[in-house]
Amino acid sequence: MRIEVICTGDEVLTGKIVNTNFSYITQRLEDAGLSVKWETTVGDDREDLLLAFQLAGQRADAVIVNGGLGPTVDDLSQEIAAKAAGVELELSEQWLARMHEYFARRSRVMPPNNRKQAMLPAGAEVLDNPIGTACGFAVDIGKARFFFTPGVPRELRRMLEEEIIPRLLKKSGLQAAIFLKRFHSYGIGESHADTLLAGVAELVPDGTVKLGFRAHYPQLETKLTVRGRDMDDIQRKLGPVEQEVRKRLGNFILAEDDRTLEGVVLEALKDQHATLTVVEMFTSGQIAGRIAHLPGAEEVFRRGIVARDFGEACAAVGLDRGTVAEGITRETAEAVARAAQGHTRTTHALAVLIDVDEGADKLEFGGTICLAIATGGNVASRRSRVVGGREWVRLGAVEMGLDCLRRYLQGLPVYERIDFEKVE
Amino acid sequence: MRIEVICTGDEVLTGKIVNTNFSYITQRLEDAGLSVKWETTVGDDREDLLLAFQLAGQRADAVIVNGGLGPTVDDLSQEIAAKAAGVELELSEQWLARMHEYFARRSRVMPPNNRKQAMLPAGAEVLDNPIGTACGFAVDIGKARFFFTPGVPRELRRMLEEEIIPRLLKKSGLQAAIFLKRFHSYGIGESHADTLLAGVAELVPDGTVKLGFRAHYPQLETKLTVRGRDMDDIQRKLGPVEQEVRKRLGNFILAEDDRTLEGVVLEALKDQHATLTVVEMFTSGQIAGRIAHLPGAEEVFRRGIVARDFGEACAAVGLDRGTVAEGITRETAEAVARAAQGHTRTTHALAVLIDVDEGADKLEFGGTICLAIATGGNVASRRSRVVGGREWVRLGAVEMGLDCLRRYLQGLPVYERIDFEKVE
Repeated sequence: MRIEVICTGDEVLTGKIVNTNFSYITQRLEDAGLSVKWETTVGDDREDLLLAFQLAGQRADAVIVNGGLGPTVDDLSQEIAAKAAGVELELSEQWLARMHEYFARRSRVMPPNNRKQAMLPAGAEVLDNPIGTACGFAVDIGKARFFFTPGVPRELRRMLEEEIIPRLLKKSGLQAAIFLKRFHSYGIGESHADTLLAGVAELVPDGTVKLGFRAHYPQLETKLTVRGRDMDDIQRKLGPVEQEVRKRLGNFILAEDDRTLEGVVLEALKDQHATLTVVEMFTSGQIAGRIAHLPGAEEVFRRGIVARDFGEACAAVGLDRGTVAEGITRETAEAVARAAQGHTRTTHALAVLIDVDEGADKLEFGGTICLAIATGGNVASRRSRVVGGREWVRLGAVEMGLDCLRRYLQGLPVYERIDFEKVE
Repeated sequence: MRIEVICTGDEVLTGKIVNTNFSYITQRLEDAGLSVKWETTVGDDREDLLLAFQLAGQRADAVIVNGGLGPTVDDLSQEIAAKAAGVELELSEQWLARMHEYFARRSRVMPPNNRKQAMLPAGAEVLDNPIGTACGFAVDIGKARFFFTPGVPRELRRMLEEEIIPRLLKKSGLQAAIFLKRFHSYGIGESHADTLLAGVAELVPDGTVKLGFRAHYPQLETKLTVRGRDMDDIQRKLGPVEQEVRKRLGNFILAEDDRTLEGVVLEALKDQHATLTVVEMFTSGQIAGRIAHLPGAEEVFRRGIVARDFGEACAAVGLDRGTVAEGITRETAEAVARAAQGHTRTTHALAVLIDVDEGADKLEFGGTICLAIATGGNVASRRSRVVGGREWVRLGAVEMGLDCLRRYLQGLPVYERIDFEKVE
């Protein structure tokens, strides 16, 4: 089944907004075992919209159109859909009633121009939008079924999930049951992970398990898409494959599915009734920024300290400069972590200190990261050199700090060689 | 002149990467007074690439193709360009020599598969890529001039600037001299700014000044695109318009052109030989994260403190909880800022405290921001209520904190009503 996507709107066409709706749609479809073959972006222009609909209607079996369902004069999707389908626009009494109700619930009167949103091509099938006034709909143009969706991301996402993907799966004849299993890791590059996981999908010989990756530095997402008769069938297939992925990626897996590194760290701290202080230098608050605002962190996250200068970092945790060596080393990181834990009276302290190269930023620019985690009587530390420009070093150090804390809390070795560090 | 863009590659088509190259190309062209009318994304697929090239060649006058110039087997742009143009591929001795030189400078031998990058359609015009091995080129397909560009963003950007935009401007017959003036503001929404600036572009009656906006909450970018015979002509036209924009947006302008809010704040602190401490609650280190890592901040940024709990914030700046009232108010923010300034011995301290609504996150979720700036004998503060969900409140508070500090350092009123706050 050939699927195309048409994105509409001057804001997307002129680059005022980056088209994240498209990457969301196509990724979500991939995860459901469907593939987008072609994407077109056109502006709020009658002629171009009509041509785009006609061309896609000749080539594709299914087309998702995004945007242009709003109440203003530059929202043209219904009008052009009707024209391309060769039908008139008709008022949907059903959707008009829904909109009146929508405004009533918010103690507002519906403005007259919203009525336009209930004008649909004659014979169109309504695709429900329970959280907005833009009415989704499906209609045939050429040889393709067209699905019209709102531009507001959360409305699009819900409609895609509940209304469109089920229809596409049915139309494609694919088994309706599909499941996406995700593993998040830090420290392994995509090609390395690909090598490590060679053959895992083939543990299920019928080809219904697909392995994929999505790298967003510093993390890597490993995805298993599984199709089956039903969820039992899927679980039976997935079981041995996911066990194997866990075994091969091992300690590098930091979270699975919707969980995040910072969420896992926070949970582990909560489980241990722990409290945390973080001291950061070159990462300038980004570690605190990942964890301190999370719901539940108010009981756990005690204090974050940001300093550019090593002496200032020492002063902020009540550490006498005279008692520590000069320079950023594992030992000084340990001293800062120990002092931070004592000074702020927490159970855990994480110190991430970085010695960055002097000079102008470039790809060869690097930094030496020294980090330490202190608890009551214990301290763990690691040293690592990362190269790849200022921002690359910073992002890497934030992730390494959080991931070492996760490893420590989970009783795993804090040090394991990662692909992003340079061995000296 | 009708311009189209074709983006190629499975990574973009499947959403593994978000297509920021397209938004960059189209924005940059807009800024140069040119417009993109249509965009197509196809994968690394011979049939679809050929069809995309042929269709665009029938409709457009100029087409920019992005991606597919690499050395691997799935990079198909040259091959399909030759096919669409009806010519053979030929080895460009010029580019082959350039690549040998490129690898020699890096003390490496060119791998054999890079030779493919020097195979261009016969008769193609080379578009220089001084920072990579992918050779840009231009060729006619149908009635359009096609410009082929690399997928690596920095290579694309340089080629667009130096090779393609000048050729497009020449082809379009537009005056070659063009200038983009930008103003960055915080606190005014796009439609409000549009109203405030009504008629400014018309101060130059010949229509060569164009006003535009780009909203990326919490900031708004106001853009003036000016065309003229030469830079003198442009400056003469721009002068009165930019004065008028400055007058009407007034204190809300936080920076112009490539300058940033955090950069302006850092410069002002440096000029006053000042040092800074920042205390943050709900913004969890994001204010420090904007400023502490900047080059030059090592002399200025002294300490950042992040705390979820008001008592902990007080403890971190040596403030006796007994001496301050309960709850987050302008007065408590002032007390924290004063204590932070004294405790860390800086000239300036900024405290941004937030009282967030209880309960689940939703659009109606809000927060009350109380911020204060303390210097030697002086303290300024403001209170503001912002509604729009947790992340919206956080982003707004970060910007408000930095912008109030800018205002304070520039001798402007710290409080002026903004469009994003809710009047109680």
